[in-house]
Amino acid sequence: MPYRAPVSDFRFLFDHVVGLDQVAATDLFAEATPDMVEAILNEAGRLSSEVLDPLQRAGDLNPAVLENGKVRCSPGFAEGYRAIAEGGWIGISARPESGGMGLPMAVTTAVNEMMAGACLAMQLNPLMSQGQIEALEHHASDEIKALYLPKLISGEWHGTMNLTEPQAGSDVGALRSKAVPNGDGTYAITGTKIFISWADTDFIANTCHLVLARLPDGVRGTKGISLFMVPKLIPDENGNPGQANNLKVVSLEHKMGLHASPTAVMEYEGATGWLVGEPHQGMKAMFTMMNNARLGVGVQGLGAAEGAYQHALAYALERKQGRTPLGDGTIADHADVRRMLLTMKSEIHAARAITLACGVAIDMANATAQADWKTRAAFLTPIAKAYGTDTGTKVANLGLQVHGGMGYIEETGAAQYVRDVRVTEIYEGTNGIQSMDLVARKMVDGGEMAFRLIDEIEGAAEAVRGDFPDMAGAVWDAAETLREATEWLVSQDDMNERFAGAVPYQKAFARVLGAHFHLKSAVAEGGAGPRSELARFYISRLLPEHAAMLIHAKAGAKGLYSISVDDLSA
Amino acid sequence: MPYRAPVSDFRFLFDHVVGLDQVAATDLFAEATPDMVEAILNEAGRLSSEVLDPLQRAGDLNPAVLENGKVRCSPGFAEGYRAIAEGGWIGISARPESGGMGLPMAVTTAVNEMMAGACLAMQLNPLMSQGQIEALEHHASDEIKALYLPKLISGEWHGTMNLTEPQAGSDVGALRSKAVPNGDGTYAITGTKIFISWADTDFIANTCHLVLARLPDGVRGTKGISLFMVPKLIPDENGNPGQANNLKVVSLEHKMGLHASPTAVMEYEGATGWLVGEPHQGMKAMFTMMNNARLGVGVQGLGAAEGAYQHALAYALERKQGRTPLGDGTIADHADVRRMLLTMKSEIHAARAITLACGVAIDMANATAQADWKTRAAFLTPIAKAYGTDTGTKVANLGLQVHGGMGYIEETGAAQYVRDVRVTEIYEGTNGIQSMDLVARKMVDGGEMAFRLIDEIEGAAEAVRGDFPDMAGAVWDAAETLREATEWLVSQDDMNERFAGAVPYQKAFARVLGAHFHLKSAVAEGGAGPRSELARFYISRLLPEHAAMLIHAKAGAKGLYSISVDDLSA
Repeated sequence: MPYRAPVSDFRFLFDHVVGLDQVAATDLFAEATPDMVEAILNEAGRLSSEVLDPLQRAGDLNPAVLENGKVRCSPGFAEGYRAIAEGGWIGISARPESGGMGLPMAVTTAVNEMMAGACLAMQLNPLMSQGQIEALEHHASDEIKALYLPKLISGEWHGTMNLTEPQAGSDVGALRSKAVPNGDGTYAITGTKIFISWADTDFIANTCHLVLARLPDGVRGTKGISLFMVPKLIPDENGNPGQANNLKVVSLEHKMGLHASPTAVMEYEGATGWLVGEPHQGMKAMFTMMNNARLGVGVQGLGAAEGAYQHALAYALERKQGRTPLGDGTIADHADVRRMLLTMKSEIHAARAITLACGVAIDMANATAQADWKTRAAFLTPIAKAYGTDTGTKVANLGLQVHGGMGYIEETGAAQYVRDVRVTEIYEGTNGIQSMDLVARKMVDGGEMAFRLIDEIEGAAEAVRGDFPDMAGAVWDAAETLREATEWLVSQDDMNERFAGAVPYQKAFARVLGAHFHLKSAVAEGGAGPRSELARFYISRLLPEHAAMLIHAKAGAKGLYSISVDDLSA
Repeated sequence: MPYRAPVSDFRFLFDHVVGLDQVAATDLFAEATPDMVEAILNEAGRLSSEVLDPLQRAGDLNPAVLENGKVRCSPGFAEGYRAIAEGGWIGISARPESGGMGLPMAVTTAVNEMMAGACLAMQLNPLMSQGQIEALEHHASDEIKALYLPKLISGEWHGTMNLTEPQAGSDVGALRSKAVPNGDGTYAITGTKIFISWADTDFIANTCHLVLARLPDGVRGTKGISLFMVPKLIPDENGNPGQANNLKVVSLEHKMGLHASPTAVMEYEGATGWLVGEPHQGMKAMFTMMNNARLGVGVQGLGAAEGAYQHALAYALERKQGRTPLGDGTIADHADVRRMLLTMKSEIHAARAITLACGVAIDMANATAQADWKTRAAFLTPIAKAYGTDTGTKVANLGLQVHGGMGYIEETGAAQYVRDVRVTEIYEGTNGIQSMDLVARKMVDGGEMAFRLIDEIEGAAEAVRGDFPDMAGAVWDAAETLREATEWLVSQDDMNERFAGAVPYQKAFARVLGAHFHLKSAVAEGGAGPRSELARFYISRLLPEHAAMLIHAKAGAKGLYSISVDDLSA
């Protein structure tokens, strides 16, 4: 059962739920006509099913390895990468002047989801390059742009992000890597970086590391950090890969999943680097990269969820066990299996709508430069990241469960989804960090964007209450409960009171937003049909979870510290 | 950080929450004095920390393999098994007349939890033997008992369960294995069995397979199934392992976890077997074994949760990232990490209380032969199995999350808990099957036992409402909501209406029961102290989840079938 691209769901969401037409109506994205988008989706879908899907299991069984200091990649990944690059999928949202397609992030989001659903380990490679391309477009000098962007976009070279150090994970500001001016405009970069995804390959001509390091006059913490381009092979005067830089892959990690993606410890020993952006402004540039990477990682979780769902559904539709309520049917007819399948499908639809809506907000911010869209994109990003990846783990685990004992056997592939997707809840900022970002930084406006979204949700529900009393009423009530919790949150000046319930709050926001989008889908369908039934399932059976989440969100920090660390260990 | 046995929590629960004193007051278990129990817990705790814990990672890295038809086990497992056997831990609840210790199941439950917490793959071996011992005690002929029980209890031999066939998983009645009388009182067993845990070893003298098969006159379905003892080596006249039986390990599975436990496809080719129990009554005997095995598997999940919790806590107490609310503390001082640690610890306390209470009910049923205790044990078993194992997966995943990126690296061991424990939600009857058992078979009494437990919960809450208004009020209210849902459930004659919400109902029952036991812990502590704070955390932040679960439980089957199978695939 190869991966099947959910093109019709993308089209439906674009046309009826997240409003891609607004994006296509801007000058910047005038090319994103329905026909163009349809063609893009079909083509990326075909790539995913035919080229990337076969890599999934092969990559798991044959991890990337380090041999004599060189990374040897999993079989078939060179060809898979080449197909992605040749399709133009790396630079799908990159600016046309550097060779990109200049298409909306919403479309990239759909394309990335399909590639991730077919083979997460492979898709992580272009995702890293996409982040780097964006960072360079916004912050690099014209010289760096001219040299690197065309090669990154074409896939001739690829990019990585080097943030984490052993002592500096979530606390990026604790990093120790140093950058010392060489006097010729370059810098000598020294330090150890860990968890570097796709740190090297045996099938791409050069690897471009974006590295965070501290200049000699950089203050402690995040404000003293600068960003550097540190290529594996230093480009010669013609821009071709030349002399080897003073950097190396020290080791590859043995990970729970994503075996085909080489995750490295990198050592920089006076490697030559070029400053990207202003001195000490590295975090700003990094955040450009990270914000879109966060959406990108949320989409990875969602993609894996879709893959796991299709995989479990195919199994359920073949497997027979016992008499079913519909006669001698497959296990898909057993109520409990149906419950699992509908949970999976409805979570995916909700998460997909949220990630696409986040993409649309990014596109509208880029196309209109309106602060409102920018704030909306910033607000939706941590929700898209956390909900997309939590959905990945939840759906992959349900998929395994649908398989019964066979799910635990690696040959079926169900377990691989669970193992591969698990890291998405962690990297690019753990979901705890995302949630803290949501309740603190994304509410420095006093919760204005949160309330605006809640207004929108309530308004949309109110507008269809006559025709859809049950669903609209439930969504409106839930939004109102979310409003009360939001009011409580923004009234807390002590951030730790907010942090105590940040994760349950983020989950509740996603639940309510997911229900909102489901309702929109049902309305667009006229209330009768599979999308409407899926909406009913989500709204009547999953949405109620928001209430307990919001009680938890408002429980505050006090009870967390009334048990001493000693008693935790007792 | 080796595993530390949570002896004080066991003692507290035994003394103040689940009432082990009632058990010790019976003639059958008069030996289970507090001193004796204390000594047992300490000794099993020491074994777990010192002998079993070191096997955990070694077993993961060096899976059991099949070489030239023989199973080669993971390094150290022979010694680990010997230590378990020599400690008498296999036969801890077995009858003294066959060499068992005759101790209560409640105590076995604690011992098994510790062994599972230290090394799940190792503990699975004696757990299988324990189930077989129990089945033989209840159903085997005196001859079989005399021959097999002493050797199983001493650990000289070990036991397996052979239920599943490729086409017969959850639907055991579909099995095809045949048993043909040989005319000498033995039977020729032929068939293929899959998912056989610890199907063979290179360190135990004989393997005793209990195999379900159909006699020539066996009807279709579960009513035509009989149970057979089929030893790997046929005992000679002196009861020593003699001639090899006609059976073989065909292959070992590549599993997501539990690598050290050889999970086999077994082929029986006219193997010699002895009938256990009456012809066609195999399912009855199997259910004896499975009921206690279900509690045993719930305890496996719980044990893994405790191991994962300790592991994550140790990491959190060493790792520093950023400024914490308590100054320059470890990440354990960050509110979100605290939330995760307290969630883990409070789920474990609740699940532990439920498994021990189930053990007490089994003991009281055995000691008093009162139907009420038997019904209670039967009711609590699927909850203990499902909640214990769901807690295993939830806590192991939170433990991985506490580690951040390090959790995804296999060397830290956090991921192994996630991988190992995952199967416990599946084997011995999936948690879906457990939940269906709860709402159907365990409610054929019209829900009498459910209502009795709810009465108990409400009574206990009512009794302390004056001193603990918040906690007692919340528990009482939740129990009342559970009562309403139970009334709805038992009023549904169409079982599929119950099955549609069986899993959420079972989860809600566990939530309310867990809150009840937490409240009892708090009351026993006088309302001030770490157990009381943990109870407050659970009751105020996790118990509210019961409401959405019960809405889901009552949502019925209709909405599950309003989306066609074709639309599920669309």
